[in-house]
Amino acid sequence: MVNEYAKSGVDLDKLREYHSLISSRLSSQGLPIGIGHYAGAVRFGDGYIVMHVDGVGTKTLLALRTGIIEPTGVDCVAMNVNDVVCVGARPIALVDYLALERPMDEVVERVIIGLRQGADETGIPIVGGETAIMPGVVRGYDLSCSVVGIARELKIGDDVRPGDVVLGLASNGLHANGYSLVRRLIDEGRLRLEEWAEELMKPTRIYSNSILSVIDKIKAAAHITGGSFTKLRRITNYRITIRLPEPPEIFKAIERAGVSHEEMHRVFNMGIGMVIFVSRENVEEVVRVLSGRGEEVIELGRVEEGQGIKVITYRNEVLHL
Amino acid sequence: MVNEYAKSGVDLDKLREYHSLISSRLSSQGLPIGIGHYAGAVRFGDGYIVMHVDGVGTKTLLALRTGIIEPTGVDCVAMNVNDVVCVGARPIALVDYLALERPMDEVVERVIIGLRQGADETGIPIVGGETAIMPGVVRGYDLSCSVVGIARELKIGDDVRPGDVVLGLASNGLHANGYSLVRRLIDEGRLRLEEWAEELMKPTRIYSNSILSVIDKIKAAAHITGGSFTKLRRITNYRITIRLPEPPEIFKAIERAGVSHEEMHRVFNMGIGMVIFVSRENVEEVVRVLSGRGEEVIELGRVEEGQGIKVITYRNEVLHL
Repeated sequence: MVNEYAKSGVDLDKLREYHSLISSRLSSQGLPIGIGHYAGAVRFGDGYIVMHVDGVGTKTLLALRTGIIEPTGVDCVAMNVNDVVCVGARPIALVDYLALERPMDEVVERVIIGLRQGADETGIPIVGGETAIMPGVVRGYDLSCSVVGIARELKIGDDVRPGDVVLGLASNGLHANGYSLVRRLIDEGRLRLEEWAEELMKPTRIYSNSILSVIDKIKAAAHITGGSFTKLRRITNYRITIRLPEPPEIFKAIERAGVSHEEMHRVFNMGIGMVIFVSRENVEEVVRVLSGRGEEVIELGRVEEGQGIKVITYRNEVLHL
Repeated sequence: MVNEYAKSGVDLDKLREYHSLISSRLSSQGLPIGIGHYAGAVRFGDGYIVMHVDGVGTKTLLALRTGIIEPTGVDCVAMNVNDVVCVGARPIALVDYLALERPMDEVVERVIIGLRQGADETGIPIVGGETAIMPGVVRGYDLSCSVVGIARELKIGDDVRPGDVVLGLASNGLHANGYSLVRRLIDEGRLRLEEWAEELMKPTRIYSNSILSVIDKIKAAAHITGGSFTKLRRITNYRITIRLPEPPEIFKAIERAGVSHEEMHRVFNMGIGMVIFVSRENVEEVVRVLSGRGEEVIELGRVEEGQGIKVITYRNEVLHL
């Protein structure tokens, strides 16, 4: 299989190898959540303190190229708080790490505006951060955030069972994954930046408050980011079968630019930014509450006996991820 | 004044400008610690959850050049936990963010070994992390960490008064600041890497458990990092007068390579990694406990009426920082 993402310098198999190396080096710590889940945790009092770190990857390069900077600040908050709620925790504070190639006044100003916008939407404070100038290490800027959350109980999918319903929440575009691939398509003239700039630079949707509003009525949540639907494996060993709706045009444009149908579903969210697992009796209420909050909720499929992730794509192709 | 650090691409005045811009953008959040102190905090239960983020800067480039990688992992833990205890908090968990230019198996493996070593020495778990491959954004690798801590009360220097004694704890070399400047001196042939490689790649000393062992007997602690002694201003508006002892040879070698005496004290720790403020009656006990833990404790000076930071250097020059 021709792997376009690896050609862009990002080898998902290599990253998986690193993740398993790192897990094995850190496995002896006796943690309540294994390394490699959406967030980590330590016990604290009669609950847990949860922690997570994530960055916006190479979307920053496109931000500089298009001059659309603020959304990367929102992305950075979203990538973290959306993950933190996937272990059942409520985000409570954020710090950012902004590494610059050189002094870049406007970038600093606009990134902070975006971060603040994301933090305000989530309802958490930015309690600190590091701004580093690193000639020789960074080109443009690199932005990551770290979020701390609290949880009375962790929710990591242990009670997901065959028969449970799989719901999807619509994404706001590509969010912050797959940008090295996209940039290569642009550089090779296969995707027109002028045509897609605005779409590509939309900020990641923040789902944290929506997920927390139904947290007692759902069994698990999976933020669809790097690795896309392949990461649903984290949630359960049972078989997950989902049928995806027609994706927004940007995903089709990227596919037409020369990415295989299967790779599209391994790299991009295909219009679904968050997947949640709900027992049948709670579906109606969960859909009602989430829709009331402005989420577009799509019934994707079921958890079934067996193993593996089966995706029926909008073109009716069947993928086993 | 010729500013060697700015010539290396790192303008400390510019960073200060960014810090004050960022503070002003984040000032309306009503936080218990203002932005720009050693760590941030949110109230939680009858105490505080504290959070901090810091990286190892361009020391990574020298790590790659010398092949001495592990210490940067230790540095990353140290830069964070040493800061977190400076607001009176106990670190409880850590996440790391490792951004790579390309797949680099050995770097990943050895950074994790260093991180684990630092975390074990501190006595905290690494609960997660992000390993990103970012062609086009990162050269070599960039490493930062974020630490969460807890505190019953915050200790940020509010009760430091004239008459208090200023103690210093010996550093383990340059720690993780000033490396862009050092690298330029090496590149220009003013400092010989072969001669100083081992010294330059020593890991940052971890002071967290030492500081916590005397936390009830001290009024404030100041981790000496970027900006060196100029950052003592954070602690108190009273005048601080300190006399520094003879620094280790590496600092003299850097100065000889062409950095002004004053700039040395604005960029490098000059042999003092942590400064603590103690009321006169507790000095003896604090020195005894810290010495018993293997710290080399030096009495540096006093807090006095007036304002400003007055440093009497090992060459008996007087600097007003």
